[in-house]
Amino acid sequence: MYTTDKDRMTEKILTFSRFGDLGNGGITRLSLSPAALEARAEFRKRAEALGMEVVTDDIANVYATLPGSEPGLKRIVMGSHVDSVRSGGNYDGIYGVLSSLEAVETIVREKIPHRHPLTVMIWTNEEGARFEPAMMCSGIVLGKFEKEKMLQVVERDGKQTFGEALAASGWAGDEKNRLNPDDYLCYFEPHIEQGPVLEEEGIEIGVVEGVVGMVNYDIILEGVSSHAGTTPQSYRKDALRAAAWTIMEIWDKLGKLDSKLVFTTGQIECKPNVHTIVPNYVKFTLDSRHQDMAVLAQVVDIIENLPKDVFGCRLSYEEHWGRKTIKFDDSMIGYIEDAVGTLGYSNKHMYSGAGHDAQYVSEMLPAVMLFIPSKDGLSHTVVEYSSPEQVWQGANVVLNAVLEADAKQD
Amino acid sequence: MYTTDKDRMTEKILTFSRFGDLGNGGITRLSLSPAALEARAEFRKRAEALGMEVVTDDIANVYATLPGSEPGLKRIVMGSHVDSVRSGGNYDGIYGVLSSLEAVETIVREKIPHRHPLTVMIWTNEEGARFEPAMMCSGIVLGKFEKEKMLQVVERDGKQTFGEALAASGWAGDEKNRLNPDDYLCYFEPHIEQGPVLEEEGIEIGVVEGVVGMVNYDIILEGVSSHAGTTPQSYRKDALRAAAWTIMEIWDKLGKLDSKLVFTTGQIECKPNVHTIVPNYVKFTLDSRHQDMAVLAQVVDIIENLPKDVFGCRLSYEEHWGRKTIKFDDSMIGYIEDAVGTLGYSNKHMYSGAGHDAQYVSEMLPAVMLFIPSKDGLSHTVVEYSSPEQVWQGANVVLNAVLEADAKQD
Repeated sequence: MYTTDKDRMTEKILTFSRFGDLGNGGITRLSLSPAALEARAEFRKRAEALGMEVVTDDIANVYATLPGSEPGLKRIVMGSHVDSVRSGGNYDGIYGVLSSLEAVETIVREKIPHRHPLTVMIWTNEEGARFEPAMMCSGIVLGKFEKEKMLQVVERDGKQTFGEALAASGWAGDEKNRLNPDDYLCYFEPHIEQGPVLEEEGIEIGVVEGVVGMVNYDIILEGVSSHAGTTPQSYRKDALRAAAWTIMEIWDKLGKLDSKLVFTTGQIECKPNVHTIVPNYVKFTLDSRHQDMAVLAQVVDIIENLPKDVFGCRLSYEEHWGRKTIKFDDSMIGYIEDAVGTLGYSNKHMYSGAGHDAQYVSEMLPAVMLFIPSKDGLSHTVVEYSSPEQVWQGANVVLNAVLEADAKQD
Repeated sequence: MYTTDKDRMTEKILTFSRFGDLGNGGITRLSLSPAALEARAEFRKRAEALGMEVVTDDIANVYATLPGSEPGLKRIVMGSHVDSVRSGGNYDGIYGVLSSLEAVETIVREKIPHRHPLTVMIWTNEEGARFEPAMMCSGIVLGKFEKEKMLQVVERDGKQTFGEALAASGWAGDEKNRLNPDDYLCYFEPHIEQGPVLEEEGIEIGVVEGVVGMVNYDIILEGVSSHAGTTPQSYRKDALRAAAWTIMEIWDKLGKLDSKLVFTTGQIECKPNVHTIVPNYVKFTLDSRHQDMAVLAQVVDIIENLPKDVFGCRLSYEEHWGRKTIKFDDSMIGYIEDAVGTLGYSNKHMYSGAGHDAQYVSEMLPAVMLFIPSKDGLSHTVVEYSSPEQVWQGANVVLNAVLEADAKQD
């Protein structure tokens, strides 16, 4: 059993919290922004100081590799991302990079023997907060998105394309450096939970078995606009009233399916959205996720069977992208379980509700994730927090799991 | 019994439809815009051709007066406004001006004896679509708004103030010309219904007894933002779910009060309004109107007694401006009734749900309104429509009612 250095781990979090610091406890560190480039530079400096070789691929994904003792073995890779959403926190993404770096730093400083090269990664633009979509660069590597299209994506709130930002960053390298199954053995991604379960249940580590499948809909109610003062209630075809009923109906019907099902109506648009006019158009989103695709099929069935007429308004829906449930590799899950067991941490098997680069990587390499608790379940906010103890425990799990993979595999 | 000229009335509507014509059947004729000034110029030309003297007051309200036969008598005044909302129609406002002008034209051309001077008015900026608030200039005359403040109001979608637009228009006259009880006897305002009741019930004329009272609220639900994928339903404090419940509750509770009560939740704002985040804040508006203030008091009671906690979200409300029910003058209502009776038109007593300049004027002079049907109850849209027959019938009611007031009063 090995452990990382708690103070050193805490210092890493604090130091990287400066890059994009908002002065209110949080950060804005959009992909390839000056703040994100500062974080990358600090990472490179530290990795090189540990004797790691740092290269980047053509879309600025970063690979810092420490040689192993046996020539010819593939690299074990671990990491996450350094970019944040606007007004984000000091843990989402960066925690995976820094806990991986701390694991490698422990191996270097304590001269822990290891056979495989060990690579710590930074994925470019995981959040998609500046350039849509999220998980853009793991998606390019895994063939989910066309690079040429992605280079043309224009930033929100500005005019620069992703391609221009990439060229200006100085971090674009060689396409041959991309993650690939010939050079890499397996992938670990530590992350904060971003949900309340571990904290509420008093559990130290989440062993992540996969990423839940999801369906996404726009649900549209179309009525008739009329004057708030002159149209009797019985004549109205009020799209917002119809939307309110539909949201309640969705909570009622989906709420009965399964306690692990999540569903969210997060976004709503109302037209003309004037207080003296009965709305004639309301569109709202539905995002629903579950690890069992059979449960999601029931969700689809409920949406497809919503009434087509709600208080005189026409109900329709548009199905958008979904994803199937991703199941992580059993051996990799086993390494996390063993590490948690060795360290004596309480743990819970769970699925990730959020998407992560690991879900794409899992199509190429055996992959797995582990979660540490998020205070109040919050992420994507300046108050995002995990304690120094929790942060350290996660790094210890990475260290021991990586060393077990190193020992057990060739 | 007198009648106006149907073809001449139709021609008036068609001619004035050119000013601000959008080419799709509708108009945009914002207050004091070039299109509105063209309409005013055409009005002045026609009024002067009929022997009327045209003056304006300091805020460009227009008064076109035909002398009567008895010196010293006060003026009977009628009219409405020529400005429209953006993408409005050819009837709201302008109909009241043109039907009044047609009534006077009939009196002139048919040499119908009348004792009192007859004034046709144009109120400046009734809609408030360019310069808020609505009914700005009747409000200034009646002391509802301070002129100095109103002059500083900046147009939506531009930089000009109302004061600058007024000065540039060439239509600002003398403050002493303002409507006043020393010079004016009573006020008639013809208008389209802007609601579906007359058309649905097959009734030709609405005898308007007053303008309904109203209350306005913002209703606010505050929950907690969390991640759509990682937060179990049972942990959520979803402000949009809470708002949906509250909207349904309002329909349920207010819907039981009185069939003449109208209420509208027309505007909604959701934060952060991202499809993958549980909303933490939703605000929506409630506008409720009824002629009986006791019914509105019940509305207030229901709003004040909404639960303060809805699915874990905090419910609060802000009460905004309201208005008491305005009751029009009984004698004036009688003149409309008599005219409708003489002409043999089907009619219905009703309250106006929308606000009109007449509601302010009624505090100074005996006032009344009459409505003609609106096709499909629609107004503030390019498809606003009343038939030539309906338009003509309304003008006939104005003509006969004004002549009765002229005969019966001194």
